[in-house]
Amino acid sequence: MFLEKLSQAAINKCGLIKDSPLLLGVSGGADSLALMDGLIVLEFNLVIAHLDHAIRPESEQDADFIEALAAKNCLPFVRKRVDVPALAEDEGLSLEEAARVVRYRFLFDQAQQHAAQAVAVAHHADDQVETVLMHFIRGAGLDGLSGMSYRRLMPQWTQAIPLVRPLLGVWREEIDFYLLTTGLSPRVDETNQDRTYFRNHLRHELIPKLETLNPQFRKIVCRTADVLAEENQYLGTLASSAWEDCYVSHTAEWVVFQQRKFITLPTALKRRVLRRAILLLRPGLRDIGFDAIERGVTVINREDVSSEVDLAAKLSLVVVGGQVIVKTQVSALPDGGKSLLPSADFRIELFPDDSVALKNGWILKMDVIDATFEKVSQEVQTLPHDEAWLDFDKLKLPLVLRGREPGERWLPLGMHGHSQKVKDFFINEKIPAHLRDCWPLIVSGSEVAWVVGVRPSESFKVAHKTRRILRLYLSQQ
Amino acid sequence: MFLEKLSQAAINKCGLIKDSPLLLGVSGGADSLALMDGLIVLEFNLVIAHLDHAIRPESEQDADFIEALAAKNCLPFVRKRVDVPALAEDEGLSLEEAARVVRYRFLFDQAQQHAAQAVAVAHHADDQVETVLMHFIRGAGLDGLSGMSYRRLMPQWTQAIPLVRPLLGVWREEIDFYLLTTGLSPRVDETNQDRTYFRNHLRHELIPKLETLNPQFRKIVCRTADVLAEENQYLGTLASSAWEDCYVSHTAEWVVFQQRKFITLPTALKRRVLRRAILLLRPGLRDIGFDAIERGVTVINREDVSSEVDLAAKLSLVVVGGQVIVKTQVSALPDGGKSLLPSADFRIELFPDDSVALKNGWILKMDVIDATFEKVSQEVQTLPHDEAWLDFDKLKLPLVLRGREPGERWLPLGMHGHSQKVKDFFINEKIPAHLRDCWPLIVSGSEVAWVVGVRPSESFKVAHKTRRILRLYLSQQ
Repeated sequence: MFLEKLSQAAINKCGLIKDSPLLLGVSGGADSLALMDGLIVLEFNLVIAHLDHAIRPESEQDADFIEALAAKNCLPFVRKRVDVPALAEDEGLSLEEAARVVRYRFLFDQAQQHAAQAVAVAHHADDQVETVLMHFIRGAGLDGLSGMSYRRLMPQWTQAIPLVRPLLGVWREEIDFYLLTTGLSPRVDETNQDRTYFRNHLRHELIPKLETLNPQFRKIVCRTADVLAEENQYLGTLASSAWEDCYVSHTAEWVVFQQRKFITLPTALKRRVLRRAILLLRPGLRDIGFDAIERGVTVINREDVSSEVDLAAKLSLVVVGGQVIVKTQVSALPDGGKSLLPSADFRIELFPDDSVALKNGWILKMDVIDATFEKVSQEVQTLPHDEAWLDFDKLKLPLVLRGREPGERWLPLGMHGHSQKVKDFFINEKIPAHLRDCWPLIVSGSEVAWVVGVRPSESFKVAHKTRRILRLYLSQQ
Repeated sequence: MFLEKLSQAAINKCGLIKDSPLLLGVSGGADSLALMDGLIVLEFNLVIAHLDHAIRPESEQDADFIEALAAKNCLPFVRKRVDVPALAEDEGLSLEEAARVVRYRFLFDQAQQHAAQAVAVAHHADDQVETVLMHFIRGAGLDGLSGMSYRRLMPQWTQAIPLVRPLLGVWREEIDFYLLTTGLSPRVDETNQDRTYFRNHLRHELIPKLETLNPQFRKIVCRTADVLAEENQYLGTLASSAWEDCYVSHTAEWVVFQQRKFITLPTALKRRVLRRAILLLRPGLRDIGFDAIERGVTVINREDVSSEVDLAAKLSLVVVGGQVIVKTQVSALPDGGKSLLPSADFRIELFPDDSVALKNGWILKMDVIDATFEKVSQEVQTLPHDEAWLDFDKLKLPLVLRGREPGERWLPLGMHGHSQKVKDFFINEKIPAHLRDCWPLIVSGSEVAWVVGVRPSESFKVAHKTRRILRLYLSQQ
């Protein structure tokens, strides 16, 4: 029964094949010993790996025991000793957490070196029940309630080799019974080794109590996990499409989404996309609070510009210029490479034929050409945004390149009569608020001649009387 | 705080408005008394309803107490006494279940009579924790783990009026504290009334124990429910689209889906669509086992024709002729109105100008016309499937209308040389297996002349030498 279940799970659920190397982590406890023995009987191509956590004094003898067992079965064997208590102390991790990190790093390293098809570990059905119950008690969404899976990629270790759990459908009783029939004795009582109080309490107190309420409790939890895992996975793929749809750009400091698209997502996907954004910036984060996500979603749903709202782990969220930005609290808002002036009070004088290097690799050049309106009237109407042609003889030299001044007004091309506040022009043109102070203006005397990259002024436009044209153009290196 | 929370939830989460009637069920327990008082203070337009379950001897005095309280506040009041213990006995329901059914029927009846915007009940946050925990222990998918909602339609009672739960975010302690400030004393201790042992055990034993493991346990469960409800709802809408996509037809006896489309659904949606099909045929069913759904999904995924597999509640599933059929075990497979012969051994002789009434309102007629191939060659190529033209002078009278015989072969129009098994022809033409034995054939002597509604025989086709044509045609009344 044990071997049948194991064989089925290994092949059908874990997707393993027999002739490709399979790296198996063996602690020496009942579960991993039974798995090792079962996979040997089923003729899988094993590489045995043992990490000596140096937590208990007799741990070296455990390693020797596994090594001897591997040798007896003519299996390749690798071992490594890491002083986990020291490491935990150094890195401020719990003993259990440090052991976990060290162990998986070792197993996946070895799997790569042995070109293994997968790393196999011995989590079983009772571990699954405990995991799901733990998540239920501590609070978790579908991810946690879905428990562990038979086969999963662990991108934090490697994208290439999956982690498999061929015993996930086998109960502890079945494992113990199988061990009895083989005559193997476990070296380590895992129950009392690297298990926390919490898990022990679940196992010995809470689960037996829940079984008095429902004798099928353990079975039921595994099935619930199975159903939820499927729904979770499906929602995950939908969240990936949603992400693709909204995503604009990201760095290590921020992630930018289109608000317009984000807003139309169903709440369930908004939450998931936001959660992923947080994980992208804080890959180590294990629990993202419900409140953090809700604060974020609430801000995104308000259609107006927002102030920055705290999320979690020193991240914040802000909505500006039609963009949803998740960012580290210390970082400035992303400028999307659109920022040209190094600061709001930057100011420089410009003469014809000057060429000025600005931020983000931008260069502003200008020259004067002789041309009449008749000659250029077509061309001037189809200029790209990064170029402006102005009536040179109307301009006062030197021109000044600077940011806006408080309350400044101007006359955009196409607007007749009353001038407009530069600020209102920025809003109409959807220039994000945080970019406005450093947005470059070309100024003649006291009059704005070009909002760089957006629109020239009506006052200096090329007209019938124009004889000389000042050409300004931006380019990016 | 209580009133603030209540007001917010009633308006924002339950979507209630103050001037439309709201039917409030009041048992006389702490929760419903507090809700009644709170909604009166907040000036909602209440109609008070009380169902006397006749479970406890003093229940009439409870009803009098609520009536007096409604009168004091000048609120419309309705009451009804139902002998729930007798009803439970009669209908084989538990006392709790019978009380629930009777109560909701009464509340929704009254809501309709008073043109109420909703039926309000007093479930609170601790009830939510207990509900979710109960589902977790007994086994439930997302539906159960999502708990109760602030506003939900209960299609089993009415499609028009929602059930609302304005106290769903309020803790029992807050309710008790509010009652203290009002001086109202509850008539009924709901804890010990219609609560089962299971719920009582959760409340008094298990939840306090879980709170020692996580002091935030109750809060966490409510939040988990909230997140899961959103994901559940979203998956529900996706399952509705999937249903639309696969659905062919249904009666009270069966539901038919297209297998081709069903197979392409993600597993999560397959499960949900199948679950809905079961609920459509068994609306009362409360728990559909995981195994039943898995058995069904496994059969659907196998691309070949299946035997009937048991689901649950005397329902079964079968895949035939490219269709997935969920049906009551006693019912025959749906024939989609395509069955013509009353039985597989039906047999009748036919002469020209006969008109025969068949099953499902079908009528088969035939007549003879004089015509040459030249005259009809165009027409004969574009005949609809329910009509066949045969060379009358090649046929042996009387013709016979019957089902296929074991191993029978024939020569379909367009096939030259070797004959084909009628069975293989049925398979190629995707005639569902269960319809094949009763599929009508027109036979001349021992030779099949027309597979009715599908194709005539090559042997009797209208050709250059044809002088008289036998026209056969089907029509449906």
